Amino acid sequence: MSKHEPLINRLIEDLQCLPGVGPKSAQRIAYHLLERDRDGARKLSRALADAVDRIGHCRQCQTFSEADLCVICAHPRRERQLLCVVETPADVHVIEQATGYRGLYFVLMGHLSPLDGIGPEELGLHKVMDRIKSGEVKELILATNPTVEGEATAHYIADMAAGQSVVVTRIAHGVPIGGELEYIDGGTLAHAFSRRDLFQ
Amino acid sequence: MSKHEPLINRLIEDLQCLPGVGPKSAQRIAYHLLERDRDGARKLSRALADAVDRIGHCRQCQTFSEADLCVICAHPRRERQLLCVVETPADVHVIEQATGYRGLYFVLMGHLSPLDGIGPEELGLHKVMDRIKSGEVKELILATNPTVEGEATAHYIADMAAGQSVVVTRIAHGVPIGGELEYIDGGTLAHAFSRRDLFQ
Repeated sequence: MSKHEPLINRLIEDLQCLPGVGPKSAQRIAYHLLERDRDGARKLSRALADAVDRIGHCRQCQTFSEADLCVICAHPRRERQLLCVVETPADVHVIEQATGYRGLYFVLMGHLSPLDGIGPEELGLHKVMDRIKSGEVKELILATNPTVEGEATAHYIADMAAGQSVVVTRIAHGVPIGGELEYIDGGTLAHAFSRRDLFQ
Repeated sequence: MSKHEPLINRLIEDLQCLPGVGPKSAQRIAYHLLERDRDGARKLSRALADAVDRIGHCRQCQTFSEADLCVICAHPRRERQLLCVVETPADVHVIEQATGYRGLYFVLMGHLSPLDGIGPEELGLHKVMDRIKSGEVKELILATNPTVEGEATAHYIADMAAGQSVVVTRIAHGVPIGGELEYIDGGTLAHAFSRRDLFQ
C-alpha cells in the first residue's frame, strides 16, 4: 500500500513523462513544488497546457510554431535563396545561437528510418523538392547529424536534388575547435585527415 | 533576439521551477514533450494544477493531505500511543517503505531555524505538546535528520517533553548497514564507537 495521498501519487506518476525523471526524482520534484514553489507549479501547469494546445508546425519549414508560419519563415529579411535542412527544432536553435546564418530552414522532425516507417514522405521532403523546383533556393545546406541515419538522410536529399539548379552543400565535419586530439574518436580523426586542407 | 516561439520560451522558463533544471535541460524537456509526448504533458499539466489546488496539510500531523486528516492519521489501526516526529513528508514516506512502524507521525515541515524566523510555533510544536498532555502518546520518537539543525530541533522537543509522562526516544545513529568503515565520515564513526553495545 502506498502511503502517499492519491493526488501526490498521480503527480509523481505524471512527472515521469519528463525525460530522465524516474520515480525517485519525481517524488523529490513533487515534494519540492508542494513545499516550496506552488506558484511555479501553477505557472508550469498553464505553460504546459498552452504549449501543447497551441503549438503546431510551420506550414513552410515544419518547425514548431504557434502561427501558420514560424518566426523565421515569416521574417522579411531572411535570405530566401539559402535553405538549411536540419533534423530537429533544437538544431535550428543552436545554429541561430552559434552562427551568423541568415537563410531559411527546413526541419525534418527526424531522419530517414525505414524500419520505423519513416520515409521521405513522412519527413516532408516533397516540400523541399517543391521549393527547389520553384527556383527560389540557390543553395541547399545539409546540416543533418553526422550519425549513420543523418548521413543516410543527407545522401538521400542530395540524390533527390541532383540535376536541379541548386548547389548542395554539407556542413564541415572534423576535429571540434578547442578539442584535444587525444580524446577525439577515431572516425572523426580519420575524417579530419582525409579532408585535410591547405594551411592558410 | 530569441528565435523560439513565445509559448516555447514561456514553457522553457516555467520548467525551470523544477529543482535541478536550468535553461539547457528546460529546452531539452520542452522539445521532448512537444515532439514526443504531448499526452504526457497534458496529463502533467492537470496533475500539477490539481495537486497545487487541492493538497493542503493534515490538521493533525501537518503532512500533505487532500482531506482534513491524512491517510495515516485517519487509518483506524495505527498505534496512537506512538508518535514519530520527522522533518518532511518525504521522511514519512521512507519510514513507511523501509520499516514496520505502525504508529502515527508529526511532520514539522522543516526544522528550527531562528535566522529564518522558524521557531517552535512555526513548526507547530504546540500541537505535539497538546497530544502529549492529552495522555494519548506513550512514546515520542524523534526522527529528525542527524544534521546540526535536526539535532537542535530534537533537543528542543526533548526538553519540551521533559517532565511529561512520555518516553522520548531518538532513532539510532551509527555506521550504515552495508557501508564500509573506510568510507564512513569521522563524525559517524566516532559516534558509533562512543555508543558501542555488547555484541549479541
